[in-house]
Amino acid sequence: MAAPGKPTRIGLAGLAVMGQNLALNIAEKGFPISVYNRTTSKVDETVERAKAEGNLPLYGFHDPESFVQSIQKPRVIIMLVKAGAPVDQTIKTLSAYLEKGDCIIDGGNEWYENTERREKAMGELGLLYLGMGVSGGEEGARNGPSLMPGGSYEAFKNIEDILVKVAAQVPDSGPCVTYIGKGGSGNFVKMIHNGIEYGDMQLIAEAYDVLKSVGKLSNEELHQVFSEWNKGELLSFLVEITADIFSIKDDKADGYLVDKVLDKTGMKGTGKWTVQQAADLSVAVPTIASSLDARFLSGLKEERVEAAKVFGSGLNDVLVPQEVDKAKLIDDVRQALYASKICSYAQGMNLIRAKSIEKGWDLKLGELARIWKGGCIIRAIFLDRIKRAYDRKPDLANLLVDTEFAKEIIERQSAWRRVVCLAINSGISTPGMSSSLAYFDSYRRERLPANLVQAQRDYFGAHTYERTDMEGSFHTEWFKIAKQLKN
Amino acid sequence: MAAPGKPTRIGLAGLAVMGQNLALNIAEKGFPISVYNRTTSKVDETVERAKAEGNLPLYGFHDPESFVQSIQKPRVIIMLVKAGAPVDQTIKTLSAYLEKGDCIIDGGNEWYENTERREKAMGELGLLYLGMGVSGGEEGARNGPSLMPGGSYEAFKNIEDILVKVAAQVPDSGPCVTYIGKGGSGNFVKMIHNGIEYGDMQLIAEAYDVLKSVGKLSNEELHQVFSEWNKGELLSFLVEITADIFSIKDDKADGYLVDKVLDKTGMKGTGKWTVQQAADLSVAVPTIASSLDARFLSGLKEERVEAAKVFGSGLNDVLVPQEVDKAKLIDDVRQALYASKICSYAQGMNLIRAKSIEKGWDLKLGELARIWKGGCIIRAIFLDRIKRAYDRKPDLANLLVDTEFAKEIIERQSAWRRVVCLAINSGISTPGMSSSLAYFDSYRRERLPANLVQAQRDYFGAHTYERTDMEGSFHTEWFKIAKQLKN
Repeated sequence: MAAPGKPTRIGLAGLAVMGQNLALNIAEKGFPISVYNRTTSKVDETVERAKAEGNLPLYGFHDPESFVQSIQKPRVIIMLVKAGAPVDQTIKTLSAYLEKGDCIIDGGNEWYENTERREKAMGELGLLYLGMGVSGGEEGARNGPSLMPGGSYEAFKNIEDILVKVAAQVPDSGPCVTYIGKGGSGNFVKMIHNGIEYGDMQLIAEAYDVLKSVGKLSNEELHQVFSEWNKGELLSFLVEITADIFSIKDDKADGYLVDKVLDKTGMKGTGKWTVQQAADLSVAVPTIASSLDARFLSGLKEERVEAAKVFGSGLNDVLVPQEVDKAKLIDDVRQALYASKICSYAQGMNLIRAKSIEKGWDLKLGELARIWKGGCIIRAIFLDRIKRAYDRKPDLANLLVDTEFAKEIIERQSAWRRVVCLAINSGISTPGMSSSLAYFDSYRRERLPANLVQAQRDYFGAHTYERTDMEGSFHTEWFKIAKQLKN
Repeated sequence: MAAPGKPTRIGLAGLAVMGQNLALNIAEKGFPISVYNRTTSKVDETVERAKAEGNLPLYGFHDPESFVQSIQKPRVIIMLVKAGAPVDQTIKTLSAYLEKGDCIIDGGNEWYENTERREKAMGELGLLYLGMGVSGGEEGARNGPSLMPGGSYEAFKNIEDILVKVAAQVPDSGPCVTYIGKGGSGNFVKMIHNGIEYGDMQLIAEAYDVLKSVGKLSNEELHQVFSEWNKGELLSFLVEITADIFSIKDDKADGYLVDKVLDKTGMKGTGKWTVQQAADLSVAVPTIASSLDARFLSGLKEERVEAAKVFGSGLNDVLVPQEVDKAKLIDDVRQALYASKICSYAQGMNLIRAKSIEKGWDLKLGELARIWKGGCIIRAIFLDRIKRAYDRKPDLANLLVDTEFAKEIIERQSAWRRVVCLAINSGISTPGMSSSLAYFDSYRRERLPANLVQAQRDYFGAHTYERTDMEGSFHTEWFKIAKQLKN
């Protein structure tokens, strides 16, 4: 294999598709890169691709020692291997050859506490460490992802020049990368990004469901609708690919491919972690949680088939209006989708803030919205509005009460309520849209029925309660008084 | 202090109200009991109560050594102290004086893994250990709680005679106790019990909200409604105390006390754990999760007051029908509450089963329903139906598809949909009822829109998909094909 004439600028270990693509991206931006993989055929494959894609300055190594030694000091090596044990194994392999001041960057979807543990362990060896969220899938890795590096600021500065070139570039708002913060903050923010992505995908699926099941839209019509939506306020990668999906014919049978895809959704952990962190931090994230539940329920295909037999078909035709005005329905669903999306992002952003406060990370929510504008799966014109909201008021309690978003929700709430009720009366579920609406209606409610719950808690558990009209903590002998009243 | 003439049958350490009451209960059933507390005034207080309540055979000790030595061998000591570090501290204190074959029982709401860790550590010392869920609050502890002991079967057998006497007694179904299973299963089951309790309380609060906010029912009317409900299918401790609550006048100001209770709900951890475990086990528990979220949102009182200013009052009067038929509304809400409750219990039971499978606990769901029929906070006539459902079919996939429950849901689903839509159109939220309905509509749906989500995942992440019409795992180059179609 051709060796570089002088030390390379950076190294990358772990050459599955994401790793290969990110390495090629870095090389293409003019940074000579060394690459390594335990299974050496992947190294050769990557070298071949670098040749084929224009003789990019990429150099392959079959053993970790010569790989590490080929990189200029202080060395920087990005790992793109499976989260968990493989990361620990790769660190062990590489760190045997690293020297003080060198840095390892984990580009995987790692649990943030693992990153913090490793940063500490590496620090004891004089090595630097970053946990860097990388979003955008294979295509993003190759052509410009959104990058969320967190951990050692010194390490970040060592490769900032590379990251700003490699990241997606968005006109008027710059490269989709920023130093997120200390510790595991980069992984944490990427995790919430994924949670928000779950929510977006579920809301789009519900829009599809209502349009198809109630509105009886064909795939051609769905393609048109989503293409049209992608020109307006919903402009986003996920709406764009949804439009694409409806245009694709099956290559194995008649009809459209989407209709042949089994209705079972896989998942890989970040959505679950998001929901668990929300519970830990006492932050309500019902939209994201409902998207996770929808994936769980999708997995019970056999049970659902059985249940459908018990309860009849999915549609409760008695309740559906005989005639649906398609144009009106499409417009209502667009508005419901948009309003629900605001709730979902409000939840995700508040979760990030809660964690930032807990950990002292000092995360900048507006800046996160900025670096999500390009490269990543949730990229959307909508993120501009979020950035503006936090620019207007950095300590905004909730996106819902931002002046611009509040106005948009007020304009859309009638349509939103119509769509959710139409779905309910049609016997289908829009768990994401309805839980978003419940979130909105709870959040904007001065007085919730939580007084009753607290009274119950005081009744059976003497948990005490506060009063609306005076300070203090109170306990009432509800049982005794009620007993007296009964006698 | 009077010493027992011969060794006592059992000991209890930790004399807050729950501990005092359980000790008195045990003594009252004829089992001489030794009690101990680090703060000795609590010991004296308990001894006084035992005298006052009929010279019960209860003996107080101010030091742990004489406490332990007063108990017959093999010794059994129940701890009722705060979960976490205080439990470890108490174990340390007591185990210094214990001998092989002696047993400690933790009666608190402990995280099940802590119990498993302790059982192992105790086992190495030749000591036995049980984690025993105790439900019923202070009143239950005194007069008959529901007991969920898990861990050492040998230890359980040593005190079975006591537990069956101390537990709540339910005609035709016996004492509310059974050996739950190995390890931390007793704590785990109690945790899910509490999660279900969260769901029940939230659903009742929503029923109250709709009746009060939309139906304009007075507290007197609410008292009547809940009293009436407590005679039928909703007969339960929580509905009973809810009826009581509406009858109680404020003793500090005019009007009813419930209206003065601040709408902020506290919580203590078991609901959070339930939701986190559900995510870990891939079980959808939207009703329980929404009750947790409702508590979180209730805590944001100041934010809600501000948001209410931005969005106007909670009620969206334009959409509310001018005249509500009260009798019809009350009947609809009863049905919606009942149907939602079925969903909530279905979720909790499936969560228990998933954990039982993971841990090899071999839990009997019908038997759990039986021991919840009395003593505990969720006690209800409804649990009879659950027991019967599992008696009919022990491997029932979901309570929803049990013949009896399915019939009840079908009868109630129109009312259920009316209530949720009425709430939505009134601008209030019924997150528990609407997420229950979405759960039902998702579970009974043969074909969900999850095909689109899986197609999206394959589009941007090459995650592959299955097909409806042939076996195997497939990947499509969606992007390339869509690009060709566009050109």
